[in-house]
Amino acid sequence: MTTDEKYMQLALDLAASAKGHTNPNPLVGAVIVKDGVIVGTGLHRKAGEPHAEVHAFRMAGEHAKGATLYVTLEPCSHYGKTPPCANLVKESEVSRVVVAMQDPNPDVAGRGIQLLRDAGIEVEVGVLEAQSRRLNERFIHNMRTSRPFVISKYAMTLDGKIAAHTGHSKWVTGEAAREDVHHIRHEVDGILVGVGTVIADNPSLTTRLNGVKGKNPVRIIMDSSLRTRENANVLNVEEAKTIIVCSEDVDQEKIAAFEKNGVIMLPVRSEHKRLDIDEMLEKLYQLGITDILVEGGSTVNASFLQSGAINKYIIYVAPKVLGGRLSLTPIAGHSATSMDEAFDVEFDSFEKVGHDLRIIAYPKNGDEK
Amino acid sequence: MTTDEKYMQLALDLAASAKGHTNPNPLVGAVIVKDGVIVGTGLHRKAGEPHAEVHAFRMAGEHAKGATLYVTLEPCSHYGKTPPCANLVKESEVSRVVVAMQDPNPDVAGRGIQLLRDAGIEVEVGVLEAQSRRLNERFIHNMRTSRPFVISKYAMTLDGKIAAHTGHSKWVTGEAAREDVHHIRHEVDGILVGVGTVIADNPSLTTRLNGVKGKNPVRIIMDSSLRTRENANVLNVEEAKTIIVCSEDVDQEKIAAFEKNGVIMLPVRSEHKRLDIDEMLEKLYQLGITDILVEGGSTVNASFLQSGAINKYIIYVAPKVLGGRLSLTPIAGHSATSMDEAFDVEFDSFEKVGHDLRIIAYPKNGDEK
Repeated sequence: MTTDEKYMQLALDLAASAKGHTNPNPLVGAVIVKDGVIVGTGLHRKAGEPHAEVHAFRMAGEHAKGATLYVTLEPCSHYGKTPPCANLVKESEVSRVVVAMQDPNPDVAGRGIQLLRDAGIEVEVGVLEAQSRRLNERFIHNMRTSRPFVISKYAMTLDGKIAAHTGHSKWVTGEAAREDVHHIRHEVDGILVGVGTVIADNPSLTTRLNGVKGKNPVRIIMDSSLRTRENANVLNVEEAKTIIVCSEDVDQEKIAAFEKNGVIMLPVRSEHKRLDIDEMLEKLYQLGITDILVEGGSTVNASFLQSGAINKYIIYVAPKVLGGRLSLTPIAGHSATSMDEAFDVEFDSFEKVGHDLRIIAYPKNGDEK
Repeated sequence: MTTDEKYMQLALDLAASAKGHTNPNPLVGAVIVKDGVIVGTGLHRKAGEPHAEVHAFRMAGEHAKGATLYVTLEPCSHYGKTPPCANLVKESEVSRVVVAMQDPNPDVAGRGIQLLRDAGIEVEVGVLEAQSRRLNERFIHNMRTSRPFVISKYAMTLDGKIAAHTGHSKWVTGEAAREDVHHIRHEVDGILVGVGTVIADNPSLTTRLNGVKGKNPVRIIMDSSLRTRENANVLNVEEAKTIIVCSEDVDQEKIAAFEKNGVIMLPVRSEHKRLDIDEMLEKLYQLGITDILVEGGSTVNASFLQSGAINKYIIYVAPKVLGGRLSLTPIAGHSATSMDEAFDVEFDSFEKVGHDLRIIAYPKNGDEK
C-alpha cells in the first residue's frame, strides 16, 4: 500500500462509518496531511450537514496551507444545500488533492476537479477508486438511473430451498445471520416484500438491533389487487412508514380507505396482475427512496430478476438440507427453458455469519463498476 | 506447530498423495526422525503393496534404532495381506512412536499400540488426529458400517437450480469446476446416477483428465424397473464396469439380457418403485465398492437424503441466477412440511474453483469425526 493509498483508506473508513445515514447523498470521507502528520479529518454524516471537506478544513485551520487533501469523492462544484467544496479547497491553499473517484452526479462530473486544476492545484484521481465505487454503489446507481439501488436478499438451505411446501420457513438461518439482516435493514431506505409474504408471515418488517436505535426503513408492499388485510402488522404506521404499490386498475375507494389509515398508496401500471417494476422504482425514487432491500417471496424475487432490476445479491446459505419436490425456492416465476437463459453474476465475497454462509454477488456488467 | 505436528503433517501429506489408489485400505504415511534428521519416509501406495512403515524402515535401515516413528494410523497388529507392522516397529528398536489415530479396523483397534507399549516403546496417540480422521473418512466409515462412504455432489445456480424445467442443464458450472469433478471421480470406486439422468443426458460417466491417466470408477445406475436403453453410453462396458441396481421384482429374463452384455446386475428390495438404499449399499460394499460419488438427479439425491446415507456433500454454486417455478432443484422427492425437518450439516470449507464456489459439508454428527 502506498502512502496515498494509506490515507485514502482512512478517508474511506471514515466515510463508511456513516453508512445508511447520508441518503440521498454519497458517503464521503476526507483526510488532510501535512509533513506526514494528519492535520484534518472529516466525513459527511447526514444530508443537510456539512460535507466531509468542510469538517476536515475546520480541523486543519492554518495547517491546510501546502498540505495534501485526500477525499473519497470529487469535491462538488455546485451550490446544493451547502456551497461548493471545490471553492473551499481552492481557498485553503492546499498544494495537492488526491481524489478516489469522479463525482457521478451530472451537476459535478469532473467540474470540481477541473476547477482545482485551473487554480494550479495538483490533482490526482483514481487512488482506491474501486473501493470508493463499491462504497458508493447506491449513489452511483441513483445518479445514473434515477432509480433506487435494489438489493435482493434471501436465505436458503444448501439445496436451494427457502421454505417447506407449506410455506413454513422459521428459521432457515441462525440468529447471527438474522441479526445481520437487521443491520442491513438499518442501512437502507426501504424494505420490499410481496403481499404473499404479508399474508403468509404477517411480518412487522422493522429493524431490531441490540443496543443500537434501529432506523426503520419504509416498508413497501407489492400488492397488485390490494389483498393486504387491514390488521396486517405492516400497516402499523406508527412504527414505520408503509407504501403499498398496487395496480392502477384498483378501485379508488379501496385505495382511499388505505390512505385514510396513513398508508402511502402508489398505483402503477400492471399486466396480468404483474406490476410494472420500472415504473414502481421510478416513482419510489421520486418519493426519496434511494435503496431497497427486496426480501421476497419467490414470485416478487422473480419479477425483479426478470426486469433486470437487481443491483446486488445478499444470500445466506444455511448448513441444512431440506429436499422436497414441492419445497419453495428463492426465485420462482417464469421458467426458463435452457440454462443459457440464466442471469450471470459475479461473486464478491463469501463469509461465515454465525454458522451460515453469506454470499455477496453483483450482476455481471452492473453499473457499480 | 510443534515438532511432532510438523513431522506428522509430512506423514499426512505423504499419505494423501495416494488418494484413490489404496482402496479398500486406508491412506497411511510414515516418517522416521533421528536427531532432527528425517531418516526414513514411506506411504501406502496400493492394496497388496507394503504398508507405509515397511517403506520407511527399509529406507532408515540402521538409523531407525533410537529414532522416532511418526505414523498417521496405528501400526497394524494382525496378519492381512502383509505381516503385522507392530512387530516390525518393535524389531526396529525405535524408542518412540507418534500415532495420529487408532486404527478403526476392529481387527486392530488399539492392539497395535498396546503391543508397542508392552515392548517398552513410548507411544503417543492423537497428534493431528482430526486431520488424520478427515483423510481416512472413507476408511473409518467402511470399518464402522460395512457400507461405502457416500458423497453427494451437485452443481446449482445461486438460486438453487440444477436445470431448467425442460431438464436442460449444460452447463451450470464452468470448466474448472467440471474438471474438479473429474478429479473426484478419479478418487472414488463408484459413480452413481439414477436412470432418469441416463435417459435424459446419456452420460458416459467416465473420468476425463488432462495429462493423467484417469481411473474409471464403476458406474452404478439405480433403475428399479430396468428402463435403461440398450444403447445407453453407460453400457459400454469396455470403458468401465457397470452395475445396474434394480428391483428384485424385475423379470429374470430382462436381467439375464443385461448380464449377457457384461453388466453386473444387483437386484434389491423395493417399495413403490423406490429401491432399498441400505440393502443396495450393503451389497455394493460386498462387491468391493468402498466409496460412491452420487451425481443425481434430484430424485436419487432425495432417496439418499431421506435414508440418511449421505456422508459428505460436495456442492458447486455457479455465479448465475435462473429463476423459474418449474426449474429443477438439487434434491426433490418427498416434501417436508416444516423447516424443522431439514437435515443439519456442518460447513467444512468454501473455495473458489474457477468462477464457481465449491462448498464441502458433512452431516452433523457424522461418523467421520
